[in-house]
Amino acid sequence: MNEIGMDSRTLRELLEAGHPDRAEQMLAEIHPADLGVVLADLTQEETRAVIDLLFAQRRAASMLAELPSELLPQVFEALTDQRISELLTRLEIDDMLLLMDHVPDERREKIQQWLPQDKRHELRHAELYPPESAGRVMTTNLLALDQKTTAQQAINSIRSAGDSKEAVLYLYVVDGEKCLLGVVPIRRLVAAPPETPMAQLMTPASISVAAEADQEEAARLVARYDLLAIPVTDSKNRILGIITVDDVIDVLTEEATEDIYHLAGLSEEDRVFTSARVSIRKRLPWMMLNLATAFTAAAVVGFFEATLEQMVSLAIFLPVVAGVGGNGGIQTLTVITRAIALGEIEFSTGLRAVGKEMIVGLTIGLTAGAIAGLIAYLWQGNPWLGGVLLVAMVITMTIAGLLGAGVPLLLKSLDQDPALGSGVLVTFFTDAFGFFSFLGIASLMIHYLT
Amino acid sequence: MNEIGMDSRTLRELLEAGHPDRAEQMLAEIHPADLGVVLADLTQEETRAVIDLLFAQRRAASMLAELPSELLPQVFEALTDQRISELLTRLEIDDMLLLMDHVPDERREKIQQWLPQDKRHELRHAELYPPESAGRVMTTNLLALDQKTTAQQAINSIRSAGDSKEAVLYLYVVDGEKCLLGVVPIRRLVAAPPETPMAQLMTPASISVAAEADQEEAARLVARYDLLAIPVTDSKNRILGIITVDDVIDVLTEEATEDIYHLAGLSEEDRVFTSARVSIRKRLPWMMLNLATAFTAAAVVGFFEATLEQMVSLAIFLPVVAGVGGNGGIQTLTVITRAIALGEIEFSTGLRAVGKEMIVGLTIGLTAGAIAGLIAYLWQGNPWLGGVLLVAMVITMTIAGLLGAGVPLLLKSLDQDPALGSGVLVTFFTDAFGFFSFLGIASLMIHYLT
Repeated sequence: MNEIGMDSRTLRELLEAGHPDRAEQMLAEIHPADLGVVLADLTQEETRAVIDLLFAQRRAASMLAELPSELLPQVFEALTDQRISELLTRLEIDDMLLLMDHVPDERREKIQQWLPQDKRHELRHAELYPPESAGRVMTTNLLALDQKTTAQQAINSIRSAGDSKEAVLYLYVVDGEKCLLGVVPIRRLVAAPPETPMAQLMTPASISVAAEADQEEAARLVARYDLLAIPVTDSKNRILGIITVDDVIDVLTEEATEDIYHLAGLSEEDRVFTSARVSIRKRLPWMMLNLATAFTAAAVVGFFEATLEQMVSLAIFLPVVAGVGGNGGIQTLTVITRAIALGEIEFSTGLRAVGKEMIVGLTIGLTAGAIAGLIAYLWQGNPWLGGVLLVAMVITMTIAGLLGAGVPLLLKSLDQDPALGSGVLVTFFTDAFGFFSFLGIASLMIHYLT
Repeated sequence: MNEIGMDSRTLRELLEAGHPDRAEQMLAEIHPADLGVVLADLTQEETRAVIDLLFAQRRAASMLAELPSELLPQVFEALTDQRISELLTRLEIDDMLLLMDHVPDERREKIQQWLPQDKRHELRHAELYPPESAGRVMTTNLLALDQKTTAQQAINSIRSAGDSKEAVLYLYVVDGEKCLLGVVPIRRLVAAPPETPMAQLMTPASISVAAEADQEEAARLVARYDLLAIPVTDSKNRILGIITVDDVIDVLTEEATEDIYHLAGLSEEDRVFTSARVSIRKRLPWMMLNLATAFTAAAVVGFFEATLEQMVSLAIFLPVVAGVGGNGGIQTLTVITRAIALGEIEFSTGLRAVGKEMIVGLTIGLTAGAIAGLIAYLWQGNPWLGGVLLVAMVITMTIAGLLGAGVPLLLKSLDQDPALGSGVLVTFFTDAFGFFSFLGIASLMIHYLT
C-alpha cells in the first residue's frame, strides 16, 4: 500500500499560514479517491478553500465524483448553487445523477437552472430510468463507429477525442440506425493492419443489457463474462451507453453490503459514521418488529405457565432450544441468500436445496440434541427431561432448515428481496416452534418429568 | 440477459446420436463461463467426450479455468493425468494454480511430471507465495518495455504478441533492472504520435502491491483507484506480474461471501449444493460451540432457579430480553464488520464507533424497554415487573452496542478475522448479560414483584 503522504492537518496549516500555492501543490498530488480522508476533518470555510483550489486545477469535479456520499452534504453546504452546477457540468451523466441524488431537495431546482441546456436535458432524460437501473449507472461517453470504418480511422477518432474518452476500452460497431452490431476491444484495434474494416475486427455483440434492467444484472454479466464494459441498449437494440467495470465493482460492493445489512434488518444508510440520531431512527422500526416477534415467542412460553409452575427447571433449557434453533436457521438462511445473490440457485433447484437443508438440520438436531439431552439428564438427574430436549431440538432444527431455506426462496419467487427481514422472521419461527415443541412435549410428559 | 441457447439434454442427444460434429459446433458457440450449467448434468463418459471436443477446438483449457470449483472433481476424474497436464500447460499461471489446488493430492505429483519443465518450474515458484496472496492470483502475462521505446514500437510489440496478450490494457515501463517506472494505458498509446517515447507517455507508477500482500489488499486498491490491472512487485520494486480487474471481482465476491459466512459461523466450502454430508461435517463444530454457549446462558438462568420458583412468570420474559439484545448486538456487529471489510474504519476511529454504538444501544434500549415494560405491566398487572424489564433491556442493549462494536475491532487489532465467530460470541454475551441483569434485578426486587 502506498503512503498517501498528505493529511488534513498539514493542509490546514498551509491554508492558515497563507500558502495557497503550496496547498495547491499538495492537492495536485493527491488522487481523487484519497480526498475523502482529508476533507472529512476540515471546517466549512476550509472545505470551500480546498474546493476553490481544486476548481482552479479543473480537478474539483472528478474529486467530487469520488467522495464518499456521507461527505457530500458538508461539501454542498460550502458551495453556491452556481458553483455546484459548474462542477456537475464537467461530469459524465452517471456521476452527475449520483451527485444530484445527494443535493438537498430545496436546492435541486436552482442548481438545475444553472446547468447548460444540453446538460439539463440529459439529466432530465436520465432521471426517467428507474432507480438502480442500468440506465442510471451508464455513461453515454462511448465511441460508436460504422462497420466500414478502418482500423486507422478508428485510431484517428480516438486520437481526436483526446482525454474526454479516457474510458475507451471497446469500440462499438453500429448500423445506420445506431443498432449495436459488434464490439472491437481496443487491443485488437492496435494489433490490426491499418486498413482492416471494423466489420472484420469485431466480435458480434451478444452480451448487452436493457436500460431498464436492474444494475445488478449488468454487474453480474460483466463479472460472469470478464468484461471491461457492457453496452446498454433500448428495446430496438440501439446503443444508449455503457457501464464500465469500475462502476460494476461499486454496484457489486453495494449489493453485498445490502445483502449483509438486510439479513440483520439494517438500512443501507446506517453506516459506521452515520450520526447516532440517524442510526437510531433507522433501527427503531426493526427493533419494534423484533419486539413484536419476541413477545409472540414470550406468549408461547406464557401459554405453558402452568407446566412451568410444576417444573421451574424447564425454563433453564429455553435458551438452549432457542439458541441452537436460531443459529441453525441463520446458517441455512445465509447459505441460501448468498446462493441467490450469486445466481447459483433458481426456484426449480430451490426445492432440492430445501430438502438438503432439512436433512442437515435433522442430523445436526439429532447430534446436538443427543449431547444436550445427555447434559440435561446429568444436570437434573432426569432421563425423560433429556429425551424431551432431544426430540424438541430435532423438531426445531428440521424446521430451522425448512424455514431458513424456504423463506428466502419464497420471498424471491414473490419478487421480494430474499434477505430483507428474513433473519427476524426465521429467528422468530425457530424460537416459537422451539418453545412450543419443548414445552408442549414437556406438558404431555409432565408426570414422567416431575 | 441473453439466451444461452444450449442445454445438456440437447448436447447429450447429439452425442448419443453420433453427431460429434454438431455437438462440436454447439460447443464452439458457448461462452466458457456458461459451460458449468451444461457439464453439471453430464455423466463421466459424456464429460470426457465434451472435453475431448473442446480440446480439439483448443478451448478446453479456457473452459476449465472458468468452471465453478464444485465441478472440478467430476471433470478431473474423467481425464487422464497427461490430458490434465496438457490443459494446464495452456493456462496462465494464476489459473493453473487455482486448478492445481483442486487436483486430488495423490494425482498432483504425476500431473506435475507431465508438465513441460518451464511450466513445472513456474508452478513451483508460484506455489511459494502464501495462500490468498497477490502472488498467487497474478498473471505473468504482461508487456514490460524500456522507457525509450516509441509508441509505434510498442504497438508493434502488441501486434507481434498476437492473441497471447489478450489481456493487455496497460504497458509497463521498466528500467534495466526490471524495476517499475511507469504505466501507459493502451488508449493513450493509440492516441499518441508514433514517435513519442514511453517515458513521455507514462504516468509514474505509484500504485502497486507486494507479491506477499493479501489478495484483498490488491483488490481494494484496484477498486479504490478504478484500475483495470495492478502491478505486483517484489521488495526491489521489480515487476513480477499483474492482477487484472476480472480477478479482482472474483476476489471481492469471494471476500464478501467469506464475511457473510463468518458472521453466521459457516465455512466457505459449505455452499448451497455441497453434499449434505459435507455441510453437516462443516457445521457441527460450530454447533458444538453454540451448544456450549447456550448451556452457559442456561446456567445463568439456572443460577436464579430459586427466584423463578417464587415467580414463574419471569421465565416468560426471557425470550424478550434475549431476542432484543441479540438482535441489537448482531446489528451493531454487522455495521462494524462491514465497515472494517470496506476499509472505512481503523482502530483509532474505532473507539468513536464503539461510543456511538453504545449511545444507539442505550437509546433503543430505553425506547424498546419502555414499550416492553409497559406491555409486561399490563399483561402481568405489576408495574415493578415492567420497571425491571426496562432496566434490564437498557443494560443489555448498551452492552450489545459495546460488544457488537468492540469484539470485531478487538479481533481485527489482534490480526484475526473480525467476522469469524463474533456472531456466536456477541449473541452469547448479550444473552448471558440479559438473563443475568433481568433475573438479578428481579431477585433483588423479589418482594415488590410477588
